[in-house]
Amino acid sequence: MSDPIDFYFDFSSPYGYLASLRIDDIAARHGRAVNWRPMLLGAVFKKFGGAPLSEVPLKSDYFLRDMPRAARLMGAPFKWPDPFPFASIAACRAIYWQTDMDPEAGRALARALYHTAFGEGGDIATAKSVVEVAAKVGIDRAAAGAALQDAAVKDRLRQEVEAAMERGVFGSPYVVVDGEPFWGHDRLDQVDRWLETGGW
Amino acid sequence: MSDPIDFYFDFSSPYGYLASLRIDDIAARHGRAVNWRPMLLGAVFKKFGGAPLSEVPLKSDYFLRDMPRAARLMGAPFKWPDPFPFASIAACRAIYWQTDMDPEAGRALARALYHTAFGEGGDIATAKSVVEVAAKVGIDRAAAGAALQDAAVKDRLRQEVEAAMERGVFGSPYVVVDGEPFWGHDRLDQVDRWLETGGW
Repeated sequence: MSDPIDFYFDFSSPYGYLASLRIDDIAARHGRAVNWRPMLLGAVFKKFGGAPLSEVPLKSDYFLRDMPRAARLMGAPFKWPDPFPFASIAACRAIYWQTDMDPEAGRALARALYHTAFGEGGDIATAKSVVEVAAKVGIDRAAAGAALQDAAVKDRLRQEVEAAMERGVFGSPYVVVDGEPFWGHDRLDQVDRWLETGGW
Repeated sequence: MSDPIDFYFDFSSPYGYLASLRIDDIAARHGRAVNWRPMLLGAVFKKFGGAPLSEVPLKSDYFLRDMPRAARLMGAPFKWPDPFPFASIAACRAIYWQTDMDPEAGRALARALYHTAFGEGGDIATAKSVVEVAAKVGIDRAAAGAALQDAAVKDRLRQEVEAAMERGVFGSPYVVVDGEPFWGHDRLDQVDRWLETGGW
């Protein structure tokens, strides 16, 4: 089996949510696994400038229209969370903590968090709400709650975010296939084709 | 025949170039004409903030890779103009001047300008170079040269750019189908489907 592909995303990114619904199937068709790597776009904006789409003049109006339209086209459930954008740091920490113990459980938690946020318009911005979602996928509440306060878990995320930025990850979703980067859920067909052909 | 669709683009936008290679065919399949409406992204950046992709940290590296990759996937000739980005105001003026007299000749000139810039990596940044391209598609040099200095032509472009910004156009390419906006060459499949279905 070839190397896994890297799937970077921010839990507060609805286009990342759309990509999360397709990425595993695309990779599996080509015999690849996927490393789900949540990161913090806020750290990118702080270091390199930039702002969430929802705060950019003109673009924000477009984004509010394009996003649900893209979800409808995919037949994906979609509801804006309130507030939006939201802090995704607790969700990120939970994923690395869980993935380090059990990658499949980490992915299941990531899917559940994304579904809660954008499939149902629910809250995943606080440690408390992240623990609630974790409990739904069978993770122990007390363990999850403790992990979110754990300095080692916080450090783990900090390192992941640094590593992502060093690799040039600046948006969400951002997929890397054998060193080749693809930004945006609208590049997933290219990801599929790159996996199929080895590049063009 | 239903209303024409509006195709907004900046001549300095290579993704606009890619869209220009497909937009007429897509529209024609659904019995629609296309209004080619060049505009100036610089005016958008000045009014609302923002910068060319080539000047945004991290994004610029990605852009330099994504753009030729997208062109190869389409089988489109592609070469970076030097310098890039370049001033597209003379090219814009030429298009509105020519289109007002003869829309088909205006489109032919727009195609020739885009091909020179991104198909061949040539220069279309000056009035002189725009006149050269115009001559190649059978437009009188002296008439074109005079038009580019004409205050009425300059005014015409100013009004078009203002109208585009009032409509919310913030990027290139930007296509409007029956009031529905689509930003990016990677939304052309959605444009095709919208024309087919009337929306979703």
